[in-house]
Amino acid sequence: MPVSEPIITLTTDFGMSDAYVGEMKGVILNHCPGARLVDISHQIPPQDVLSGSIVLERILRVFPAGTIHIVVVDPGVGTSRRLLVGQANDQWIFVPDNGLITWAWHRIGNIRVQELLFRPVKTPSWTFHGRDILAPAAALLASGQGESVPTIRLDRPVLLNVAPAGSLDEAQVIHIDHFGNVITNVPVELLSNDTYVLGVGPIRNTYSDVKIGEPLALIGSSGLLEIAVRNQHAASQLNLTVGSKIQFRQS
Amino acid sequence: MPVSEPIITLTTDFGMSDAYVGEMKGVILNHCPGARLVDISHQIPPQDVLSGSIVLERILRVFPAGTIHIVVVDPGVGTSRRLLVGQANDQWIFVPDNGLITWAWHRIGNIRVQELLFRPVKTPSWTFHGRDILAPAAALLASGQGESVPTIRLDRPVLLNVAPAGSLDEAQVIHIDHFGNVITNVPVELLSNDTYVLGVGPIRNTYSDVKIGEPLALIGSSGLLEIAVRNQHAASQLNLTVGSKIQFRQS
Amino acid sequence: MPVSEPIITLTTDFGMSDAYVGEMKGVILNHCPGARLVDISHQIPPQDVLSGSIVLERILRVFPAGTIHIVVVDPGVGTSRRLLVGQANDQWIFVPDNGLITWAWHRIGNIRVQELLFRPVKTPSWTFHGRDILAPAAALLASGQGESVPTIRLDRPVLLNVAPAGSLDEAQVIHIDHFGNVITNVPVELLSNDTYVLGVGPIRNTYSDVKIGEPLALIGSSGLLEIAVRNQHAASQLNLTVGSKIQFRQS
Repeated sequence: MPVSEPIITLTTDFGMSDAYVGEMKGVILNHCPGARLVDISHQIPPQDVLSGSIVLERILRVFPAGTIHIVVVDPGVGTSRRLLVGQANDQWIFVPDNGLITWAWHRIGNIRVQELLFRPVKTPSWTFHGRDILAPAAALLASGQGESVPTIRLDRPVLLNVAPAGSLDEAQVIHIDHFGNVITNVPVELLSNDTYVLGVGPIRNTYSDVKIGEPLALIGSSGLLEIAVRNQHAASQLNLTVGSKIQFRQS
Repeated sequence: MPVSEPIITLTTDFGMSDAYVGEMKGVILNHCPGARLVDISHQIPPQDVLSGSIVLERILRVFPAGTIHIVVVDPGVGTSRRLLVGQANDQWIFVPDNGLITWAWHRIGNIRVQELLFRPVKTPSWTFHGRDILAPAAALLASGQGESVPTIRLDRPVLLNVAPAGSLDEAQVIHIDHFGNVITNVPVELLSNDTYVLGVGPIRNTYSDVKIGEPLALIGSSGLLEIAVRNQHAASQLNLTVGSKIQFRQS
Repeated sequence: MPVSEPIITLTTDFGMSDAYVGEMKGVILNHCPGARLVDISHQIPPQDVLSGSIVLERILRVFPAGTIHIVVVDPGVGTSRRLLVGQANDQWIFVPDNGLITWAWHRIGNIRVQELLFRPVKTPSWTFHGRDILAPAAALLASGQGESVPTIRLDRPVLLNVAPAGSLDEAQVIHIDHFGNVITNVPVELLSNDTYVLGVGPIRNTYSDVKIGEPLALIGSSGLLEIAVRNQHAASQLNLTVGSKIQFRQS
């Protein structure tokens, strides 16, 4: 930092039918004309901090060093909740301090967090800190003006009450994806050749290991146990939602 | 203009399940290889010119000078409706002349409009002027070939029959956002400490000034009166839609 | 190839509520820091290869030479289905070999296809070849390291059992767009001044040639016969879906 064309990613629950995402982009380009904007998702379910947290963890694994990620899922906007600047995997994170950092905290670790004290000269709106604080702060950092983005060390960020399972007894559903695949909090390290998911079966390699319409368990693309139904919507078929417990038979 | 990497934004009602948005992007990059494309929204409700107009006004407030905005919500494509080139806040606007410029016209002002006479060498399709006229015209301008984009002065663009309220008697709902927040046409200048929205309450600072599930009135992030229900969908809860009248008690 | 800032487009059925699209973008930027990412669509209906195929054909007509297109609609991920690299219109295509190339094969032609043998050093996941094989392969090619992307000549790609009509007897619906317009497989070459679509009427120029709410037939923006209802959702009104036969009266 600074680089001439820094990457700034955007993840929000704003949807794409309003101007909100566009306004954040405009503010960023105003403060950092060379920024390369990358849309991650603007379809995080409204106010679903856990979903935003999971997305953040996944993209931190793959983006280049120096990337700046802004994630705005912010039901507490306008309250006294803090704003955070984090550093993980040589990347930067700008988020409300409401648990958005949870999944990366547990799965990536070595995250340094600070409270973001930056406030723009003009009084920010009470309802859109993404546009009025996070976007300009991230863009100033990206453009090499990090000295104008004051922060202060923070002991510990807010964390959600959801974590990777330490044993199979803690297994639960943490996310349903666009295809209806069911993602659990069970990391691959807890799985063995003997693991058998009750009502589903043993751990398979991939969807085609079962017939169309049949359920299967497999290790998903982020290293967590997933439950799918081949070419169908597993969550609906198996009646699973976020928070559902998963049970096992260890043979 | 020209700059080496001009910003061109795209706002449409095309959705993202077809190739239409992608085709516009390809045409732009063909005519202006250095263009930096910025998606604003492709989820404007089909043929909803007012929504497109409100989005355009909001992004004109934040993008850098020189930005080119293309907005395509065009129920009259193929009719004799004109195409417009506008200039506002040192930015450029390419739109059908069907009212898309309305909200910027009233709220930003100082907009210079011209009729776009540019037509490509190959006959454009009758149904996709966004791809065949607006995109290449904007890209030619962006690439420094503005002389090949003929225009002619226009007395007055088409304006929708919706405007910022001049008094509280004219207050109405103009937009429901992704969260269900209700945006009105009442600018902050009409509000005072005494303003009280019937059925809602006085003007608050932010959502957390009321309990979860309770309605509140506040000044939204674009300087208009908004009505919300904390952490819920206000439009559904309060049975408000675009066009609903808002009433006040001035104490 | 290589160019300093190659264009890489993305078309998927991933939706935008998960991290999947963002992960592909991160991988690409890691392997090709100068890549310019262009979102085409991530709302291809899940596992709808025909829709993805039609989008690919349309964007191949308009993007600049050297563009790299990645299209991931991949119900067979993890099976033995091959991966393809194609070249058409001086552009590159990275896709699963499941029929995604069908529509371009028939309508654009002169497509050279090879099987992609590239596999990353780290074992790729069984369920996300878009991120783990196609994205890095495309990015390596884009960054001038094509020699590290091994391929082998392929006799013939997998093609879907849908093709442009050779005569009006083969006319059928191939796509319903976001507005409800009905796109058929009938190319403009089969149409004449006498063509009359049963239940719809003669070929018109544009929507405004009929009254609001009335059906019409017209030549769509990709040169195929379309059936629309002015300012309404034709597919619903006329009860047409993908696969429906279209009949004509030749007067």
